Amino acid sequence: VIVFTSDFGSRDWYVGAVKAVLAERAPRVPVLDLCHGVPPGAIGSAAFVLTVNLGLFPPDTVQLVVVDPGVGSTRRALALRAHGQFWVGPDNGVFAPFLAEKDLSAVELDVEKLAVENPSSTFHGRDIFAVAAARLATGDKLSALGNPIQELKGGEPWWRRTPDAILARVLWVDTFGNLITGVPSEVLREFAPTPQVRLANRTLTGLRDSFHEVARGECLLYIGSSGTLELAARDASAAEAVGIQVGAEIEIRSA
Amino acid sequence: VIVFTSDFGSRDWYVGAVKAVLAERAPRVPVLDLCHGVPPGAIGSAAFVLTVNLGLFPPDTVQLVVVDPGVGSTRRALALRAHGQFWVGPDNGVFAPFLAEKDLSAVELDVEKLAVENPSSTFHGRDIFAVAAARLATGDKLSALGNPIQELKGGEPWWRRTPDAILARVLWVDTFGNLITGVPSEVLREFAPTPQVRLANRTLTGLRDSFHEVARGECLLYIGSSGTLELAARDASAAEAVGIQVGAEIEIRSA
Amino acid sequence: VIVFTSDFGSRDWYVGAVKAVLAERAPRVPVLDLCHGVPPGAIGSAAFVLTVNLGLFPPDTVQLVVVDPGVGSTRRALALRAHGQFWVGPDNGVFAPFLAEKDLSAVELDVEKLAVENPSSTFHGRDIFAVAAARLATGDKLSALGNPIQELKGGEPWWRRTPDAILARVLWVDTFGNLITGVPSEVLREFAPTPQVRLANRTLTGLRDSFHEVARGECLLYIGSSGTLELAARDASAAEAVGIQVGAEIEIRSA
Repeated sequence: VIVFTSDFGSRDWYVGAVKAVLAERAPRVPVLDLCHGVPPGAIGSAAFVLTVNLGLFPPDTVQLVVVDPGVGSTRRALALRAHGQFWVGPDNGVFAPFLAEKDLSAVELDVEKLAVENPSSTFHGRDIFAVAAARLATGDKLSALGNPIQELKGGEPWWRRTPDAILARVLWVDTFGNLITGVPSEVLREFAPTPQVRLANRTLTGLRDSFHEVARGECLLYIGSSGTLELAARDASAAEAVGIQVGAEIEIRSA
Repeated sequence: VIVFTSDFGSRDWYVGAVKAVLAERAPRVPVLDLCHGVPPGAIGSAAFVLTVNLGLFPPDTVQLVVVDPGVGSTRRALALRAHGQFWVGPDNGVFAPFLAEKDLSAVELDVEKLAVENPSSTFHGRDIFAVAAARLATGDKLSALGNPIQELKGGEPWWRRTPDAILARVLWVDTFGNLITGVPSEVLREFAPTPQVRLANRTLTGLRDSFHEVARGECLLYIGSSGTLELAARDASAAEAVGIQVGAEIEIRSA
Repeated sequence: VIVFTSDFGSRDWYVGAVKAVLAERAPRVPVLDLCHGVPPGAIGSAAFVLTVNLGLFPPDTVQLVVVDPGVGSTRRALALRAHGQFWVGPDNGVFAPFLAEKDLSAVELDVEKLAVENPSSTFHGRDIFAVAAARLATGDKLSALGNPIQELKGGEPWWRRTPDAILARVLWVDTFGNLITGVPSEVLREFAPTPQVRLANRTLTGLRDSFHEVARGECLLYIGSSGTLELAARDASAAEAVGIQVGAEIEIRSA
């Protein structure tokens, strides 16, 4: 299987063009669209999507990841082997959060080894990454696609501790208006078992087990389906209710 | 075939995560996305989508329906057999409009029978419904998934009659701005063969056969491709022209 | 393969309904969604999508194109053979830009030959075009679907020359806010090798090779991944920065 994640959205032909290349070069390999709604260029949000869905895919899955604000610059193009799966995408930190150094095997993609002619300078998803993903999906080894490298670019952390709080970025605002952070339940359990978040117009205290513990329209904190702290409003959009967007920082204290 | 309908939208990884579970557990079964743009939590709109597309799918199709504002509450999780197809989703009225009691066979999904461990409390689409759909698609019987139940939750009607009018909810506003009701052409024929709808800034009278019977930008009433009353504007958005949203009520009189 | 392009967007069940018909009538043929985000009724934009992706698909591909603002009027329904592929869609100019008369073989679709009963007057994508595409994908000849015709409806040009400039329509605004024209790099090379575009609040001069030649937030002109002139902003939306929408006209002079 090839799993495809990008910030291409649902409006353009970019997803279709990449899948046309995959269909031509790996015609028998099913392609699964994991997510194309990563906010444009949001590397940390993309890394989060990859991390929380890591366990859904079988060994040897090829994950094609095109969130690539540096396309056409000197950023490297990568293919990796990690967590028993293959990963193809830019070296911009998108793979950083879930790669431990020890299990990593990586190459910098080489246009000549890929036999790609005249790739565009703005659509490596179609012209380079899709070709590499198809090659891996049809049995090629990493070494056939490029030259080994040791260190990858790091990513920005999803959260950090201050002396008396956890500062967490909002990594995602979903269709329902839920605000999703990357703070795992284990971290909360240790540092803020009864978390408290102060917003402009309200203070939320404690974790709820389900939306139905609060009244309609009310906000709540809970551990979402990705195992991290989320802020939602029952039958309403928390993003609208609290006026917060992707990238905003939330301060979590222990009540 | 598994047919998948939800209110997950096109932005998040939720559709992808459900399809990953289906791919793992029913790898040879094709999945067709019917619609993921149901307005968040709009049970009646989802029921409408299922109803109008019922005839497009062959016998034994498994329809997976995740429009589930009550996830995590005490609402039951269902698998059904009706209209020669299987249906999996929450017991919130989403299946009500097209289920006659006589042809119904239903079970309440049982997490132990499904062998699901630690389902999240907010994403039953991935953790429970997808598993049940995959089981049905690979040959399991309803009885292997849960325990028989008799009565399902009813749904809100799409329209109702008053002494001198039909009151119809707008169930859908499509990409073109067309306003779609659930009033079937037969009902109009009987009670309002020349329907009249008064809006803030105009009155529409009579059914048109095609958009091209009115001038550009003008509104019209017609029987849409789903066999029900719609309100559109030629080469323009009726939703913008008349300032109406999903859930609004339209009064239809006989001219 | 059937390749499917439309202006149906990602919200409704229209794409799903068409694919249900294809799955029923051509069950073994894979369907690739090229693009469903064509602006509603934007024939020229749809033609552009088809043109730039023409080379991605193998011989005998069936391209189903439903951008059909004239549905229900007297516009003809077509099936064509051109560029070694099949094309199905309305006769409204959507195929015009890439069809030379010499390589053209076309029929007007005939509802009786297609054996379609009671097609709706507003959803020919489902009721007529999908049926024709499935027939071609399963081996039928053009002549089995309709009657030969000679001339197709022309399309509006994507750009035109004035004595001292090129006037180009914005055919597409993508998810990143890039403004895409249909002016090929060869045309620029001949008439405006150093193109200059004056906007309300800035003047852009010269082509850049990559976004990274300008500062963050700055606008630039470049040849996009489709081989035509685009206007982007680095790490930002050019559409927002310059306040321009699909259909606007840009004047390109030689600096």
